[in-house]
Amino acid sequence: MKRGSVLVTGGSGFIGHWTLEPLVHYGFEVHVAARRPSTSVIGQFHPVNLLEAGESERLIARVRPTHILHCAWDVTHGSFWNAPANLDWVAATLRLARAFANYEGRRFVGLGTCAEYDWSDDGVRPRREDDLLRPTSLYAQAKASTGSVLQAFFADQEICFAWARMFHLFGPREAPGRLVPSVARALIAGERAACGAGHIVRDYMPVEQAGAALAMLVESNVQGPVNVATGLGTSVETIARLLAEISGRPELLDLGTLPDPPNAASVMTADVTRLHQEVGFTIDIDLKTALSATLKHWLKHSLQ
Amino acid sequence: MKRGSVLVTGGSGFIGHWTLEPLVHYGFEVHVAARRPSTSVIGQFHPVNLLEAGESERLIARVRPTHILHCAWDVTHGSFWNAPANLDWVAATLRLARAFANYEGRRFVGLGTCAEYDWSDDGVRPRREDDLLRPTSLYAQAKASTGSVLQAFFADQEICFAWARMFHLFGPREAPGRLVPSVARALIAGERAACGAGHIVRDYMPVEQAGAALAMLVESNVQGPVNVATGLGTSVETIARLLAEISGRPELLDLGTLPDPPNAASVMTADVTRLHQEVGFTIDIDLKTALSATLKHWLKHSLQ
Repeated sequence: MKRGSVLVTGGSGFIGHWTLEPLVHYGFEVHVAARRPSTSVIGQFHPVNLLEAGESERLIARVRPTHILHCAWDVTHGSFWNAPANLDWVAATLRLARAFANYEGRRFVGLGTCAEYDWSDDGVRPRREDDLLRPTSLYAQAKASTGSVLQAFFADQEICFAWARMFHLFGPREAPGRLVPSVARALIAGERAACGAGHIVRDYMPVEQAGAALAMLVESNVQGPVNVATGLGTSVETIARLLAEISGRPELLDLGTLPDPPNAASVMTADVTRLHQEVGFTIDIDLKTALSATLKHWLKHSLQ
Repeated sequence: MKRGSVLVTGGSGFIGHWTLEPLVHYGFEVHVAARRPSTSVIGQFHPVNLLEAGESERLIARVRPTHILHCAWDVTHGSFWNAPANLDWVAATLRLARAFANYEGRRFVGLGTCAEYDWSDDGVRPRREDDLLRPTSLYAQAKASTGSVLQAFFADQEICFAWARMFHLFGPREAPGRLVPSVARALIAGERAACGAGHIVRDYMPVEQAGAALAMLVESNVQGPVNVATGLGTSVETIARLLAEISGRPELLDLGTLPDPPNAASVMTADVTRLHQEVGFTIDIDLKTALSATLKHWLKHSLQ
């Protein structure tokens, strides 16, 4: 017997894609909602634009999922931090939640962001889920607000709700302009790989692991905000040097040629006690192996 | 020459109605959006259901207001605190804001609530606009989240934005089940007037004054959250005794026969420094005169 049926919105996206196989593994009947089909979708695909009025209602009425993992959002690299579309995604997410409650959904997991936290202390310690929030971008504010409204709404509706605060991710299918793909692709092309000074420290998680952690969170009954991260800080320099070393072209690395992001905290790391102890996810990250796999992905991609 | 054109959503409602005359006085071309027309609407009336997709976009495209005062929300007495419709109003408000920005609107004033604040200290001191928020109901969370998202959005759009945190109001056209109307109507009917123990203290403002304060806020350039209140605390007992005294039927008052609201803070009052000093609103409240006017309203209403 199936564990239930889960609708993964944005299921062909960077994060959503990696949740599908683990969800099947847990025994879920998997439904994927996305605007465009992906070649590699597992489960039943539903082409849908959640920003269109009535679309999520019709989808929920048809699929009647017991669980939702809501990954869909506008995260267009370079513009999403202040994109007006963030307002549309708040509205679309609330419509999805309303429809889910109307059709007796049981568990909803949404995706938040580490940018919801107050980093004005420059990240002197890992962030816990009950730490103060102080979003400084429209994207982070939209995510924090959505999480808070959903928490209050689902509590009233007696629907089990969790909010996964995602930290930094890398891996196959990442937007090409971001750190790891841009360095990896330059190295593969034999071109100079420009990046920032490399001193900033982030909690980098391979996206496949994030997908597995999210699937485990969906399958659990853990409620409220949960950091999805490794708990380990790695500097941008370390990431860049590992990529250069694995590719065998360390001489191509140009550390410090790009500006660091403005107003960025020196350190952004997560306290992962909840993910580890309550959700039961074992963090077992070999950064070098994960970066090797990512390089292979971009190598394959560059040959296509 | 006109000051500009202002669209008042919910302009036939309890609060919105009382903003129209002062807005005309300031020289605004006044447009009122509401689902149902009111007999007493000043300005141009636009029948519209803001919850319907596309309606606010069409309205904004037609009216092209320079200013919006957004009063519309579901505040059905007895149910609004946890009504799922709060999600619809968050979404509708964000759609309105998006459309306003697309048509080069200049200033947007939205309505928040005193329930956004953290009252867990039982209200030992008046709340300032930069005090901690800790909404404990879906309504308050939806308002707080909407205000935060709008603040971030309009800052990026360079649109002047204020968020009016409304405290407790009374006056003509209030929902009949609420404190002042229920006591007033019982007294007028010569029936026993039941109310709570009366010890809780609230910042009661006559709604006509709140309307005038909101109009002045719209006309100003003050940005961010602004408490709309008197700064004075009055106990429910004082309100009830004044009503009984004015009506000449003090013997009908049954203080303590209704339960106090559960988990209610003993005191909820506002620091009104911003409203007074920055907006320039002079608070000049004669509670007895305002309650007399309210009693007259309900007397007239009971004779119709």
